[in-house]
Amino acid sequence: MNKKGLAILMRTRMRPGEPSKLALSPLAANEMRAENKGNQSAGSSMGDGGGEGNRVLSPSSNNMRAFEQVRESMHSAISMNKTEVLDTVLSDFSEGYFSLSPENRRKLLLILAKEYDLNRVQVRQLINQYLSLELPKGDGAQGDTVEEEGLLSTFYRIERNLRHSLQPLYEVLFERLNTHPGGLKFLSILRADILCILAEDNIASLRALDSYLKEKLSTWLSPATLELHQITWDDSASLLEKIVAYEAVHPISNLIDLKRRLGVGRRCFGYIHPAIPGEPLIFIEVALLKNVAQTIQEVLWDNPPTPEHEATCALFYSISSTQPGLAGINLGKFLIKRVVTLLKKDMPQISTFATLSPIPGFMQWLLSKLASQSKLAELEASSHPSADRSTSSFWENILKQEEESALLSLSEEFAAMNNGMEVMLHILTSKNHDWKNSPELLAVLKPPLMRLCARYLLQEKKRGKALDSVANFHLQNGAMVQRINWMADRSEKGLQQSGGIMVNYVYRLGNIEEYAQSYFSTGHIHASPDLLHQLENVDVQGNGDE
Amino acid sequence: MNKKGLAILMRTRMRPGEPSKLALSPLAANEMRAENKGNQSAGSSMGDGGGEGNRVLSPSSNNMRAFEQVRESMHSAISMNKTEVLDTVLSDFSEGYFSLSPENRRKLLLILAKEYDLNRVQVRQLINQYLSLELPKGDGAQGDTVEEEGLLSTFYRIERNLRHSLQPLYEVLFERLNTHPGGLKFLSILRADILCILAEDNIASLRALDSYLKEKLSTWLSPATLELHQITWDDSASLLEKIVAYEAVHPISNLIDLKRRLGVGRRCFGYIHPAIPGEPLIFIEVALLKNVAQTIQEVLWDNPPTPEHEATCALFYSISSTQPGLAGINLGKFLIKRVVTLLKKDMPQISTFATLSPIPGFMQWLLSKLASQSKLAELEASSHPSADRSTSSFWENILKQEEESALLSLSEEFAAMNNGMEVMLHILTSKNHDWKNSPELLAVLKPPLMRLCARYLLQEKKRGKALDSVANFHLQNGAMVQRINWMADRSEKGLQQSGGIMVNYVYRLGNIEEYAQSYFSTGHIHASPDLLHQLENVDVQGNGDE
Repeated sequence: MNKKGLAILMRTRMRPGEPSKLALSPLAANEMRAENKGNQSAGSSMGDGGGEGNRVLSPSSNNMRAFEQVRESMHSAISMNKTEVLDTVLSDFSEGYFSLSPENRRKLLLILAKEYDLNRVQVRQLINQYLSLELPKGDGAQGDTVEEEGLLSTFYRIERNLRHSLQPLYEVLFERLNTHPGGLKFLSILRADILCILAEDNIASLRALDSYLKEKLSTWLSPATLELHQITWDDSASLLEKIVAYEAVHPISNLIDLKRRLGVGRRCFGYIHPAIPGEPLIFIEVALLKNVAQTIQEVLWDNPPTPEHEATCALFYSISSTQPGLAGINLGKFLIKRVVTLLKKDMPQISTFATLSPIPGFMQWLLSKLASQSKLAELEASSHPSADRSTSSFWENILKQEEESALLSLSEEFAAMNNGMEVMLHILTSKNHDWKNSPELLAVLKPPLMRLCARYLLQEKKRGKALDSVANFHLQNGAMVQRINWMADRSEKGLQQSGGIMVNYVYRLGNIEEYAQSYFSTGHIHASPDLLHQLENVDVQGNGDE
Repeated sequence: MNKKGLAILMRTRMRPGEPSKLALSPLAANEMRAENKGNQSAGSSMGDGGGEGNRVLSPSSNNMRAFEQVRESMHSAISMNKTEVLDTVLSDFSEGYFSLSPENRRKLLLILAKEYDLNRVQVRQLINQYLSLELPKGDGAQGDTVEEEGLLSTFYRIERNLRHSLQPLYEVLFERLNTHPGGLKFLSILRADILCILAEDNIASLRALDSYLKEKLSTWLSPATLELHQITWDDSASLLEKIVAYEAVHPISNLIDLKRRLGVGRRCFGYIHPAIPGEPLIFIEVALLKNVAQTIQEVLWDNPPTPEHEATCALFYSISSTQPGLAGINLGKFLIKRVVTLLKKDMPQISTFATLSPIPGFMQWLLSKLASQSKLAELEASSHPSADRSTSSFWENILKQEEESALLSLSEEFAAMNNGMEVMLHILTSKNHDWKNSPELLAVLKPPLMRLCARYLLQEKKRGKALDSVANFHLQNGAMVQRINWMADRSEKGLQQSGGIMVNYVYRLGNIEEYAQSYFSTGHIHASPDLLHQLENVDVQGNGDE
């Protein structure tokens, strides 16, 4: 999954206005601060001069001293001999870092990125040394002379020295923090701060540091190291608090809501890394149902839940990551497969494993398509009135004739517009999604929205992979697209993202590997016959692009 | 700790003749095979042509086909696109590898080392590209122009490409195996095989591969990832079987012995890595006692054990690593400190934390010293009869005058020898350590052996660190040398390694950091006054070297 896609899928956030209700440890409070900063910068840039990369710092002398101390401990942590005792230095550095203001953290991270990268003089020396050597010939397993082996040893040693010299100095800091208790968590917070800064200011040296740190974190967070843990009401409050705080898909409103999600007919599983105990890095919520649910309302609020022995379907309805600093690292890769295997073993009567998933990119894609195409249509209409519209290769009426007519005949106001796409754009961007309360509008919108949603999921691609990040995530994991559901999520967010439509992906145990393989190699998306049928009309018109 | 030192300390072995008693899984059986091979090669080289690096292979065509299949799966595992599904390929490779004969494993590992290292054509191209660029100036945080940031981005990108091109291709295999269930364990077995081959044949390319793999394993086995687990009689038989198999210091003779070591007055703790469940990578055995024990016999066989509420001392009497493939990776670093902290919390009445440790290098050092010095003494005596012996800077009588006289007057046979050192050498190398049964010999040997043992532990160094690997291990961890104990280990191995002497290292909670720090920075070894007193006579003679 691409970075942006995963960032959307895995978005972690505190719901605004709620954080104060939670009892947070100092560490968590710091995290939240970093995160809120993140949310702000993801929106519009604030009035603190962050936008132009030219902050004016006005630290008190107290601040300055604290900053210099942290800077010194950072320097010691990097430059100490590897056999020296580092525990206290690393603790000093991480505690000191937390005490810094956002401005000073930024300053420190830039120092780390610029002053602790490579010794380029040494790199050039080693390059010259390396270029002066040839790899000795005759490197066969048998019959090597002792002399040849000696030359080879030298060659490999210099090659290794060159490799080491190209590793930035800050690698030492990362490696040492990783072996330090609490260090992995600290690195994840550090990276969250870095991502915040980069969102405002694309600083090349910091970008290079981030990409290096991300590589390291990916290695350390190998799925083989992650433990699958079933989260229950018996878990500690500090862990459950994090579930409430980080549920990114369907916010948990209160303790009763949380208890429901962990109670009868529900399951919750998380991946825990041993170096970050008591805090799942990613978690998934499951509902045990009689049938694959069509709306999130019935999953979140059906009462009473299905008795577990009657359930035949396990529905994955939410997956959330808890660490903003681990954005872009695919933690979910084996999670679903492991949960499916576990559930199947515990409850053999479960025969269907499906999701009820958001379609986070649908509306964004559709609105931009409607805007550009209705503009093109207008231009075409004015230059070649009543001429053959298909001459422009860019122009495409994404609506069918009957949909166009239905939209234009909704009201006099709409009839005066240039075309159906303009009408649709106008309705969909109306304040508060008012259209959702009008049975008339819903009836007219449903056919084109459902048809275009199928097209978006199955045909719109980027570099050969599904454009929608959540679709790409599940297809990569070996799922197929089963069904799209009208008015399946009536929440503000659901309407905003996907016009209230949700999708069921299905995992068939026997096909997971095969589907994943064909998706990877050819980009082929497996879909149910029903869904392909919904799409067909588009193909008949010959307008499906890519 | 240096590699060789750790290899000695951490040596893992199955006691010969016993493996067949254990019910082993196929994997464990394979490991054992690898290990036995290791034991053989560590001794004298076997008659299979392994010594000259020129094995004649005679694989049947069946063997050939199997080999080619494993080779192919290895190639696929490395060359597949990273987004492709790898699980089956990696499983095929690791299962295939286990089915190979030692000769074919060797062949495959050499192919991996030689054909999958670097693309050196690409490296040279990137070096040229890199050398043609200058790091753009004016890399300040503020006031950078967009153009400068663009140039910097390019520079960092090429630098990163160069760095990546210097990573061997086989890194991909290691990384992928690490994320694969069971892969970390497999890599440890692979490295055990590599170390066996290198012990016979120092092949440069394989040595380079090993050093790369070792770096990777060190990263993945960060102490922060290791879980401290108390091993008890309630653990699974498959885990306990491994404790029996891998106890390297004081072999466990039967189930009753094992149960004792896990029962009242005893503790056993292991580090478990989440990716290698059910198998501690290293474990430590503890006895709760009234006083610091002087002999291993009383620890292993005192009956009944001290009631736990009467114990004031926790004695670490054994530490063993279970993975020959993790040799040289310091897994024990935080183990003792964590166990001390845990025990102190659970049992506040424990005030002394000490070890009863072997001195694996003492006899080897002493015998070589005796042989060389007695030879030198002989030469001196013949060339300058009755002259001043101190003229030769190499010559040193490591015996005191009264020790010399006592040795020479033991018997007529000895009186005819050239000097006391020759007598001592003769006695210590006698068959079956017969001296241990003669009260007369013991009385004469004890003073010089104890004195020289104190000297060996406190003064004999290598690169500024204690020569004895176990001493270096504990000193690095912040211990001090408390006491040496005569006839503390009367086992064959104890007599062989250290003339039956054992040592108590003591961990003082308040001094651990300070002692470790001073040992690291200056090589200073903290010792008890008693022990320093035992040493003093040597210093008075002015013969302490280094």
